[in-house]
Amino acid sequence: MSLIVKKFGGSSVANAERVFNVANIITEEYRNGNDVIVVVSAQGDTTDELIEKAKEINPKGGSKRELDMLLSAGEQISISLLAIAIEKLGYPVVSLLGWQAGFNTDSNYSMARIKNINTERMRAELDKKKIIIVAGFQGLNKYDDITTLGRGGSDTSAVAIAASLKADKCQIYTDVDGVYTADPRKVKNAQKMNEITYDEMLELATLGAQVLNNRSVEMAKKYNVELEVLSSLENKPGTLVKEIVKMEKMLIRGVAKDNNVTSISVIGLKDSPGVAFKLFNKLAQHKVNVDIILQSVGRDGTKDITFTVSDTQCDDALEAINELKDTLNYNDLTTNTDVAKISIVGAGMESHPGIAAKMFESLYDADINIQMISTSEIKISVLIDSKYADKAVQAVHDAFIG
Amino acid sequence: MSLIVKKFGGSSVANAERVFNVANIITEEYRNGNDVIVVVSAQGDTTDELIEKAKEINPKGGSKRELDMLLSAGEQISISLLAIAIEKLGYPVVSLLGWQAGFNTDSNYSMARIKNINTERMRAELDKKKIIIVAGFQGLNKYDDITTLGRGGSDTSAVAIAASLKADKCQIYTDVDGVYTADPRKVKNAQKMNEITYDEMLELATLGAQVLNNRSVEMAKKYNVELEVLSSLENKPGTLVKEIVKMEKMLIRGVAKDNNVTSISVIGLKDSPGVAFKLFNKLAQHKVNVDIILQSVGRDGTKDITFTVSDTQCDDALEAINELKDTLNYNDLTTNTDVAKISIVGAGMESHPGIAAKMFESLYDADINIQMISTSEIKISVLIDSKYADKAVQAVHDAFIG
Repeated sequence: MSLIVKKFGGSSVANAERVFNVANIITEEYRNGNDVIVVVSAQGDTTDELIEKAKEINPKGGSKRELDMLLSAGEQISISLLAIAIEKLGYPVVSLLGWQAGFNTDSNYSMARIKNINTERMRAELDKKKIIIVAGFQGLNKYDDITTLGRGGSDTSAVAIAASLKADKCQIYTDVDGVYTADPRKVKNAQKMNEITYDEMLELATLGAQVLNNRSVEMAKKYNVELEVLSSLENKPGTLVKEIVKMEKMLIRGVAKDNNVTSISVIGLKDSPGVAFKLFNKLAQHKVNVDIILQSVGRDGTKDITFTVSDTQCDDALEAINELKDTLNYNDLTTNTDVAKISIVGAGMESHPGIAAKMFESLYDADINIQMISTSEIKISVLIDSKYADKAVQAVHDAFIG
Repeated sequence: MSLIVKKFGGSSVANAERVFNVANIITEEYRNGNDVIVVVSAQGDTTDELIEKAKEINPKGGSKRELDMLLSAGEQISISLLAIAIEKLGYPVVSLLGWQAGFNTDSNYSMARIKNINTERMRAELDKKKIIIVAGFQGLNKYDDITTLGRGGSDTSAVAIAASLKADKCQIYTDVDGVYTADPRKVKNAQKMNEITYDEMLELATLGAQVLNNRSVEMAKKYNVELEVLSSLENKPGTLVKEIVKMEKMLIRGVAKDNNVTSISVIGLKDSPGVAFKLFNKLAQHKVNVDIILQSVGRDGTKDITFTVSDTQCDDALEAINELKDTLNYNDLTTNTDVAKISIVGAGMESHPGIAAKMFESLYDADINIQMISTSEIKISVLIDSKYADKAVQAVHDAFIG
């Protein structure tokens, strides 16, 4: 007998038919003799609808404490509906809100971190042989107030339960049947991988592959929780995410595209010591995450610094830089949102020289200009004009995977 | 400085505009230097929509435990939206779910009774000078599971808070501006009362006046909480509900109509001792509430017993009687749903003979036949053909109130 944690996203439970589809997956696992804990997100567009209601009252959306109270109602609805479906199929089941399942978080409303899970209630329900349906995305802080974990938080909820209860597997059900070497809707010959390492998955998630929430992969790695990404619509194995994977022929594991990128250029900085430090220190104070950085020599002994941030942080970054206007004494500040980041990821690449050259060559052959480059041990990213993004992914994928 | 509890129903917070209307009423009270605790129901048709969602999955609606989990999400949405509106107006506010406000109930899901309220959290928020918005209709049982108090439970939540915290007043806001001598939409010259006793209000509530939930009036009487029924749309005094009221000229306090009545006749019972006992004892075992009873002599030494129940309990009543088919040995069992109960209520009537006669005369003058009669110290009810119900209310109202 195993303990299996399954997580279903909002589209998997969007209507009564899909709720029963999910209920069937769950009860099949239970019939196989396993303990089953299910984490579920709010139905379909519920969260967006609730946000819209709040914006009708306050376009700025209200305090985060009250928004968390509001949004957590979405999962409350989906867990009870799923439980009612499982009851209808004749199986013992109980739905639990985040706090009932023991999720204790810090008080960072809308982006709370899980501090620990008091597993007493879940263990008691498992002892009663109940299927447990847990509201993802939510917890309780030390003031007994409801918090939410931020978008994608249900993945994290599922992994946290699997880690706390030492589950045998944590299955994340999505509308794709696994992790692909590139977006299968966009790239010919994109291949599903049977296995991938946590680190590779992390790079792919960060890079916009959008299969798994990043924080959940970090947590899975930390607590060594075996993840499986699989489809809720097709009954077949997905992709396993784990520490060590069998070597496959593929040198790189995936090609990812991220359109949510803005490049910001600070032009004509006086070339004195500490300029870069002051700039990036100020950005850090404003909680701006900087990705790729390029420093180049400008005219007349000045220098230019270009860096990328996510689109949503562009305004924060500009505000931060403006506070340094007098200190840095730069000539110009420009932004470019028409850029995309194309990345290849693969744990094997560090031992194989020539990977970068091969990537650049494939882009050159496709007449795509590279604006910036960034590398780590297991990935290479380039910034290009966003209008060539899909073409670039295909070209790089063709070169490495075929 | 006073502590005021205000309760707003679902239609009062049905959309953003109405939410702000309610927020203005609340903040005006707060500006006057009072502590304010607000109980609010789910927005507009939310509860019905959630029930509909459950029925799509299971036409029978699922277990009561899971339905309570589902339905309580409705108030969670409305309290946070109202709190966001009050924040927008610039006042300190906090929304609390039933369990956060300390509502402990028994485990009778969907019809739970409040056992006690742990007022610690509410007191702490009042000390911080916060306006408190509490989710009505819900609580928590000893298993840490969410319960609901049944339809109209938000009135009960408000009175329970007022009783626990010894509030100076409990104001129930509705879409009418007080308690009337009859339904003002139906009866000409229906008059608003300034004051009414708990007992009179209880009779009117039971009789289908539908202004206040019955259980809440019982609780207000028990703990001597002064209630006020008033309009959320007009800024003027409503009707006070209290123990002793100033005598007004009116002899009767109201005329009420109840269409939710079925009369059941058991015909041709053998006239032996204990027949009535057996019948009503069996009905009590099936939790059927019997209202008016008429016993009459039938043919050949048999007797007939006719009684009324609410429409919703008709099937239960018939099932109970069928279990006695062999014991009672009756000839026939008939039901009539086309009946209505018309009642007059007034604490003064017991000391004024002739009230009943005056009522019957007014119905006779209107050519309306009386099928059954029931009286108590402060009310007289008659059963008539439902198609004359509105006409009967008007005739009785004309006779007593004008």
